[in-house]
Amino acid sequence: MLDRTAYLALDAVSLPRRLGGRPELLDRLGPAEAWQVREVGDGNLNLVFIVEGPKGSIVVKQALPYARVVGESWPMSLDRAFFEHEALSRLGARDPGRTPELIVFDPAQAMLAMEHLTPHKVARRAFMEGEELPLLGTHLGLYLARTLFRGSDWSMPTTARKADLALFAGNAELAGITEELVFSDPFKAAALNRHTPGLEDIAAAFRADRALKLAAVEMKARFCTGAETLLHGDLHTGSVMATPTDTRVIDAEFALYGPMGFDVGVCLANLWMAAFAQEAHRADARAATAYGEFLLATAGILWRTFEAEFSRLWASERTGILGGADLFEAQGDEAGAKAALTTHLTSVWQDALGFAGMEISRRILGLAHIAEFETIADIGLRARLERRALAFGRHLALNRRQIPSIEAANLLAETQRARP
Amino acid sequence: MLDRTAYLALDAVSLPRRLGGRPELLDRLGPAEAWQVREVGDGNLNLVFIVEGPKGSIVVKQALPYARVVGESWPMSLDRAFFEHEALSRLGARDPGRTPELIVFDPAQAMLAMEHLTPHKVARRAFMEGEELPLLGTHLGLYLARTLFRGSDWSMPTTARKADLALFAGNAELAGITEELVFSDPFKAAALNRHTPGLEDIAAAFRADRALKLAAVEMKARFCTGAETLLHGDLHTGSVMATPTDTRVIDAEFALYGPMGFDVGVCLANLWMAAFAQEAHRADARAATAYGEFLLATAGILWRTFEAEFSRLWASERTGILGGADLFEAQGDEAGAKAALTTHLTSVWQDALGFAGMEISRRILGLAHIAEFETIADIGLRARLERRALAFGRHLALNRRQIPSIEAANLLAETQRARP
Repeated sequence: MLDRTAYLALDAVSLPRRLGGRPELLDRLGPAEAWQVREVGDGNLNLVFIVEGPKGSIVVKQALPYARVVGESWPMSLDRAFFEHEALSRLGARDPGRTPELIVFDPAQAMLAMEHLTPHKVARRAFMEGEELPLLGTHLGLYLARTLFRGSDWSMPTTARKADLALFAGNAELAGITEELVFSDPFKAAALNRHTPGLEDIAAAFRADRALKLAAVEMKARFCTGAETLLHGDLHTGSVMATPTDTRVIDAEFALYGPMGFDVGVCLANLWMAAFAQEAHRADARAATAYGEFLLATAGILWRTFEAEFSRLWASERTGILGGADLFEAQGDEAGAKAALTTHLTSVWQDALGFAGMEISRRILGLAHIAEFETIADIGLRARLERRALAFGRHLALNRRQIPSIEAANLLAETQRARP
Repeated sequence: MLDRTAYLALDAVSLPRRLGGRPELLDRLGPAEAWQVREVGDGNLNLVFIVEGPKGSIVVKQALPYARVVGESWPMSLDRAFFEHEALSRLGARDPGRTPELIVFDPAQAMLAMEHLTPHKVARRAFMEGEELPLLGTHLGLYLARTLFRGSDWSMPTTARKADLALFAGNAELAGITEELVFSDPFKAAALNRHTPGLEDIAAAFRADRALKLAAVEMKARFCTGAETLLHGDLHTGSVMATPTDTRVIDAEFALYGPMGFDVGVCLANLWMAAFAQEAHRADARAATAYGEFLLATAGILWRTFEAEFSRLWASERTGILGGADLFEAQGDEAGAKAALTTHLTSVWQDALGFAGMEISRRILGLAHIAEFETIADIGLRARLERRALAFGRHLALNRRQIPSIEAANLLAETQRARP
């Protein structure tokens, strides 16, 4: 896409020299001689630096030409930085204040400088530390409703939406990672798979489970062909940074057009998994139960807020070609518009449950695991908790059309969490 | 998209002068001085010339910068000729021999020279003349299975599919016509709508029918967001030319990525409507019944052939990322692969019924009507037959998830056709 002959990975020493001439950064940080740089990337794909100067601090994210989680043997296009910048710009405009402020983007260097979110903490870490984030569910519910609705043919001018669909179709390499790692690998003996010792039987059972694999194939087809809206594409709780009063969504390099239920389902799945892991992170059972209840309540608030905000936007901003206001409101049929909304929300909900089942499966049996489970030193305990989560995820995937509400899904999680 | 300053509409006089220097055409036709040119376009959008020379004949199709059916007040991009050429090239490669041979494409002139199909006749005309086309259903079923399967993520390399998705997203103007004329206008008081006198009550009933409009909104969302494969996009029986032994698909300017059921449903709807119109075109009731039975049988053969060929390709060419052979066949589970096929075919079938309901509605209540009804001079008879077809179309749209088979759908058509 771009001439990348000038591309060179940054490091803590070269960064001030290479970026110290940019006025937007000097404004924020003060003189480059005084910058303190540390590399803090703990994700799977990129370099991340925190740069502190006399006047303030920023974050600099730079894509590497390979997947960091695997190494240089897995080359990966630098274009993902371009797509991340395009996506964050759109997502930020659709729900202002919920993404980091973008300061400088350099496509040739695959480098994005942005607001340093502080004292924010990755949501996953807060979950392990037992820190309650009382606004998390509300913020994520609003974010999901606004970004998913406003990137769709229910809202956007259709030519702009089609142009965006075409643009993000170019992010095929990262889409391919999701297609393979989320929807296929957990259900076969894939080379990159790994799981906690003791889960051999359930891993084998998943590979032999025809009904589950049929669900995986169906959800994969939904993901690949259901081009409803611009998704974040990787909205797990490691892509969320929060304080008790603020929530931000980061890391949008997987952005693509897909079904609304994907972002919702991945997000819910990660809240549920954090609840399943609680027992290992709290000093006593009562604290684990209480924090687990906070996480399930957060899932509940997330979906109910999503639903309410989506309904509000449906009533007030349904200006796209799928709006159908010409068929309903314009003919005095408000109830018809509401019925169309219910149909759509039901489909998003069922998709979300299916995708949540996939996300749980792949985070325990596939390549990329979650910190809440990975940090459990007691392997036996870890396997036991993961096993419960897997059973829950499988149930979601198979019964996605029968689970009527978030309360019903939470009750299933609660029940499964209490299993021996 | 292109510099069109040199664009100039062809006419019978200027055509030999302007195209007479092209060796591919001289090879086919002989010297340009001897060319005989007639304009035969009876479609809604383009100029079409038959050019005959001493050595043979060709067809030249040129897009006009407006919609011919409405006039210069409806400007329309010439880029549709580009998309038609791109689409016909792909569709022809996916089912060789079922599209016209392409000879010359001139993007700046929005002009495509192709094989002159002779003695082929537009399928619609054969239906009005009562000419049986015994291979029509088989050919269309094969064509649909091959083009729809081979343009999808079940078959194509995914980066090529995503590039095509992006390419055809550019054909937004023609997609917009379908979105508006098929899925919205028939269900509201749209300026371009027209219907046979005597249908005022059913037209008003359709505009007030909440359940039907909910189906319309759902099918429109499927059409706009269900990017399964490269569709012809306008596969009515005026886009099919046939002899008793050959069938060709033409006029692909509406091509876009969409759900497989759209091409299938539009095609079936036009066979069913032709059956509803038979009574007006045959000398006696027995002949009308017999030809109607041929048309319903053709619908049956089309779907059963589609199903069989799609199943064959599923077993033998499922190489795309949605294939899932890694989850089934590779693990010795052939039955799992068949179950996934059944799920997919059921979804195509239900979509097809929904789209057929839309197509029937819009061809009777919207802007663009079909010759089988339009040529019925007896207005009362025309209204009576169209009313039956509308009732059938509405039933399909509302009951698309309950009609189990093509035989059941044909039986419904048969019953509705016999109504007073």
